[in-house]
Amino acid sequence: MVDGCPPGLELTEADIQAELDRRKPGTSRHVTQRKEPDTVEILSGVFEGKTTGTPIALLIRNQDQRSQDYGKIAETFRPGHADYTYWHKYGIRDYRGGGRSSARETAVRVAAGAIAKKWLKEKFGIQIRGYMSQLGEIEIPFQSWEEVSENAFFAPNNEIVPKLEAYMDQIRSERDSVGARITVVAEGVPVGLGEPVYDRLDADIAYAMMGINAVKGVEVGAGFASIAQRGSEHCDELTPEGFASNHAGGVLGGISTGQDIVVNMAVKPTSSIAQERRSIDKAGNPVMMATTGRHDPCVGIRATPIAEAMLALVLIDHALRHRAQCADVKVDTPRIPGAIGG
Amino acid sequence: MVDGCPPGLELTEADIQAELDRRKPGTSRHVTQRKEPDTVEILSGVFEGKTTGTPIALLIRNQDQRSQDYGKIAETFRPGHADYTYWHKYGIRDYRGGGRSSARETAVRVAAGAIAKKWLKEKFGIQIRGYMSQLGEIEIPFQSWEEVSENAFFAPNNEIVPKLEAYMDQIRSERDSVGARITVVAEGVPVGLGEPVYDRLDADIAYAMMGINAVKGVEVGAGFASIAQRGSEHCDELTPEGFASNHAGGVLGGISTGQDIVVNMAVKPTSSIAQERRSIDKAGNPVMMATTGRHDPCVGIRATPIAEAMLALVLIDHALRHRAQCADVKVDTPRIPGAIGG
Amino acid sequence: MVDGCPPGLELTEADIQAELDRRKPGTSRHVTQRKEPDTVEILSGVFEGKTTGTPIALLIRNQDQRSQDYGKIAETFRPGHADYTYWHKYGIRDYRGGGRSSARETAVRVAAGAIAKKWLKEKFGIQIRGYMSQLGEIEIPFQSWEEVSENAFFAPNNEIVPKLEAYMDQIRSERDSVGARITVVAEGVPVGLGEPVYDRLDADIAYAMMGINAVKGVEVGAGFASIAQRGSEHCDELTPEGFASNHAGGVLGGISTGQDIVVNMAVKPTSSIAQERRSIDKAGNPVMMATTGRHDPCVGIRATPIAEAMLALVLIDHALRHRAQCADVKVDTPRIPGAIGG
Amino acid sequence: MVDGCPPGLELTEADIQAELDRRKPGTSRHVTQRKEPDTVEILSGVFEGKTTGTPIALLIRNQDQRSQDYGKIAETFRPGHADYTYWHKYGIRDYRGGGRSSARETAVRVAAGAIAKKWLKEKFGIQIRGYMSQLGEIEIPFQSWEEVSENAFFAPNNEIVPKLEAYMDQIRSERDSVGARITVVAEGVPVGLGEPVYDRLDADIAYAMMGINAVKGVEVGAGFASIAQRGSEHCDELTPEGFASNHAGGVLGGISTGQDIVVNMAVKPTSSIAQERRSIDKAGNPVMMATTGRHDPCVGIRATPIAEAMLALVLIDHALRHRAQCADVKVDTPRIPGAIGG
Repeated sequence: MVDGCPPGLELTEADIQAELDRRKPGTSRHVTQRKEPDTVEILSGVFEGKTTGTPIALLIRNQDQRSQDYGKIAETFRPGHADYTYWHKYGIRDYRGGGRSSARETAVRVAAGAIAKKWLKEKFGIQIRGYMSQLGEIEIPFQSWEEVSENAFFAPNNEIVPKLEAYMDQIRSERDSVGARITVVAEGVPVGLGEPVYDRLDADIAYAMMGINAVKGVEVGAGFASIAQRGSEHCDELTPEGFASNHAGGVLGGISTGQDIVVNMAVKPTSSIAQERRSIDKAGNPVMMATTGRHDPCVGIRATPIAEAMLALVLIDHALRHRAQCADVKVDTPRIPGAIGG
Repeated sequence: MVDGCPPGLELTEADIQAELDRRKPGTSRHVTQRKEPDTVEILSGVFEGKTTGTPIALLIRNQDQRSQDYGKIAETFRPGHADYTYWHKYGIRDYRGGGRSSARETAVRVAAGAIAKKWLKEKFGIQIRGYMSQLGEIEIPFQSWEEVSENAFFAPNNEIVPKLEAYMDQIRSERDSVGARITVVAEGVPVGLGEPVYDRLDADIAYAMMGINAVKGVEVGAGFASIAQRGSEHCDELTPEGFASNHAGGVLGGISTGQDIVVNMAVKPTSSIAQERRSIDKAGNPVMMATTGRHDPCVGIRATPIAEAMLALVLIDHALRHRAQCADVKVDTPRIPGAIGG
Repeated sequence: MVDGCPPGLELTEADIQAELDRRKPGTSRHVTQRKEPDTVEILSGVFEGKTTGTPIALLIRNQDQRSQDYGKIAETFRPGHADYTYWHKYGIRDYRGGGRSSARETAVRVAAGAIAKKWLKEKFGIQIRGYMSQLGEIEIPFQSWEEVSENAFFAPNNEIVPKLEAYMDQIRSERDSVGARITVVAEGVPVGLGEPVYDRLDADIAYAMMGINAVKGVEVGAGFASIAQRGSEHCDELTPEGFASNHAGGVLGGISTGQDIVVNMAVKPTSSIAQERRSIDKAGNPVMMATTGRHDPCVGIRATPIAEAMLALVLIDHALRHRAQCADVKVDTPRIPGAIGG
Repeated sequence: MVDGCPPGLELTEADIQAELDRRKPGTSRHVTQRKEPDTVEILSGVFEGKTTGTPIALLIRNQDQRSQDYGKIAETFRPGHADYTYWHKYGIRDYRGGGRSSARETAVRVAAGAIAKKWLKEKFGIQIRGYMSQLGEIEIPFQSWEEVSENAFFAPNNEIVPKLEAYMDQIRSERDSVGARITVVAEGVPVGLGEPVYDRLDADIAYAMMGINAVKGVEVGAGFASIAQRGSEHCDELTPEGFASNHAGGVLGGISTGQDIVVNMAVKPTSSIAQERRSIDKAGNPVMMATTGRHDPCVGIRATPIAEAMLALVLIDHALRHRAQCADVKVDTPRIPGAIGG
């Protein structure tokens, strides 16, 4: 259910489907082989190809659910999953695919984000794009945005792809998994999105990103690198030609600076691996268990569209609020461009 | 204004003042020499020494505000501050001390957090403590919780303090500033705090921490280190004696596991430094400016109590929600302890 | 989407369907003859017949939608409808059945309310029931709760039913419509639900009731009659045997008193009538239009289950909050019963 | 704390004080003789006479609090007050003046509403005014807006004032109290404020009005009178010259129609009366008690400014949301005026 979308935006199921297809499983040997078409259906809020301004209801049904895959895990708790946690919290556990904690849940976020991305681009000129910047130990140097869509990893660098493939093949052969770093960038962001105290833009971004399954860390701009930086290095100077650098990642004091917003997130290695590991059963007895089934050896590979969607949802919210509150503001001071390479 | 505090908690201004005094300026030569007594006044919500259950209004007044310190910055934008941003957003700028984006604003968070910490300890047995784990390039090995209160840095290690002092003296002599890493730990957290989809515990923590001034990154558990970890290493095994490790940092699937919640945050170097730096004025002309006045050379030094307060405010919210929703849940499965060394 | 339902509640689609069937169209000649089975499907949040504690997604599809019924109204604005309003607000109008402003939208509220009613009854002993207390000019004296389900009007009085039927037949023959008063009562409510300043129980009830389509007024307890009452009459005395009266309608200072909560709402006459009336078209020209199609001559007839559902949704929210905040409160003072006949 | 006020609004303490002075006690013999200057202090959010866009903190201190007035009620429960309710909910009771349930709490609402009223008038041309339309049994015919400020009752009719004064003198001599009806009207409201499903304008109005102390009923437009109306009478026809009537009270389908918004609220008689009445003490024993002290014999007399403030706060919220969502909407259809006599 997407509430608050302005009226008059041209929107079809194909617009949303294009984003869902980027995230869906089964597209390469490096992701889960589960078959989920992730077909979206618009139930309301769109009339004759345009949003009506009323809530938009979207429906994506699960298709490929093999209940026998999950039966054996009903009595034990998978390490690294929320099984033990859910069980103690709720006293009941829908063990089919991890329930709501499954990565399946992210499909709807991608769908809603697709609407937000379209609106931001058409009405505000804001473009949101992401890529994988690290896979396990391998850092991925940025080459170009074009290359991101040309390989199965969302890597902005086709040359490194054979290395990534060999790496993933090895991880799979070891029946193990690995983490990844995803970088998302919003370009064309105006100055002034965000609030100074409550609902700061960076806080909302952190909330959105950390709320994605398997994410354990979020950075804006220089992030953890800023710990060892000096103020003289970190603080971005202003010149009439533009900002001299973008260590802030486009946010200062909770409000956008007009530079690119740059966000990193750390995705942990998939918890479901085929190695035998120690756990306990419902009675508290020790068991050894391996998680069979069809799982991504690196959930980070499919995380880029989700990260883009979440950033888009945060920005649309703030873009609308900003328009509400500051539509009358007129300032003579020129707006300077962001840092080159920001 | 603190809304939702349960009735019957013994609370005095002294309880809150103790936390405020940990954060207040002027306590050592390494922090700003501004004199702010940060005296708190309880306006409502407490009667005869106990909370009444109705909203608690707290008031902390600014004392030491020298308006002449700020006059000269009215026409220019300080690099690394939200000046340029505020100006374009609002068309008006209260240049006295950065307005709401000042670190002054964090005093009220510490005050509210003091109430939350007290309640969590008395009613839930949850203890929240933090420390500085890195100052600039210097990593600070954890020795003991006792040492945290024995030095001006909140360092859990008295031996390293002379090194930190020399480092800060050097930074100050260079008219520069530096960042820090703060670690906060919640012990005694029950299994089950948090929600699976919206309002996940880790997302709320990320929101709270990233909302603190100058914070550019947040990690839960292994955080960014989990990128290069294998699943076989990262995923914490369960044994009848307890979890074998705590890479998850006490949160899985948005819900607490019963292990310690471990959070790191990156604090950027203070933007206000005495070196001349490039900026522009309101007309867009280039200017050189140094920020004089009394500023912390490392805002991270006073950030530990703020981080503790924010974690406490998140946990009290979830503790109350959990009690509302899951009070009737009974489960036979034993609860296992957290990893030793959590 | 129902968020926040506690785990462990036994719940089937039949539980929800029973409530939907009370509201659905086509059950007598006095309501719209549109055929909507209003069949509910539980998509998530229930496992093996019990709620899991995670969000419950419900789906009710429209069936009997004859688009030709609505085509002719696309270019004009129906008096008493939101057509003119929607058009100016959104610049786009989904004229099929009034879009989201249709009474169809209330079906999902009834479904969600069914879950709330069940939970309130099983966990708190709170019973929520409603009835029609006035139809047009005809006031309906309360006889018994049993009679409510024995006639098509939700009238607590079977004797008056022939009079109501004749009245409705006349209204229909005049191609007109009429309003109604609905009364809802919650019994078994504990003392203390609600908040003193924000989120007062009575304010939340008013919000919920006024948010139902066609509702133009809400009263708690004596309501508008309290204007002409003296304080000596209105203020309910307390005695060891119980409250002496219930003019407050079970809420004082935003918090439940332990007496029955009594709420009245005014439902306006259906705007869709078959008489020719003045309106304008999109170009602003005057037109005469009658609303054909299958419409309820009194939308109030089907409003009782909706009112019950809305009150249930408000009460479950406050019951959960109360449990969160006040679970530790122990008071020796005896709780006195509500007024007889309250 | 007023959050979300746009920047650049000229605002002084005098603007707010003018509204507070309309509500403050002690202005005539018909209201409480307590002396409360209700002096407001702006703590933040305003700089050089203009709002900055950041949160505005207002402080109003209580002055005339005679604690001995309240001491005797500490062990008993006043009928018609929330004493019994608070006691059971919280197990603790701040009996000084009823705590947060006191009418004192409404002063801050009036202060916040003053900002909203000013902003609505200057930026949107919306004017909000209210008056007393009934005092006890006496209905007050509307004569003119000018007369409202010319008498102590907010009556739009000076001729009836002697009758109202005699009535109140009689009530007081009987040591009793009485209720009132307050009518509030917003003129100049554009078409389109409100939302169709959640956060409907009428629902938000009902929430705001019912949240005022002592209010037991809320009507929009014809309200409860619409029960006995026919659709052919109630539904406001549209003509090129304007709406033919305004039974809807300016809201259809949760959204403003561009007609005047007309709201009625029922204020119950003051519960604090000097007659002996039955109650119980904390041990559950029967007691007789009269509420001495300085109380309004009709709290409705001072309720008009509060009702105006609450309507203003609702409308500013929706005006801002509307601007955010629908700023791009262009419609050729002419907007017709409201009904004459609104």
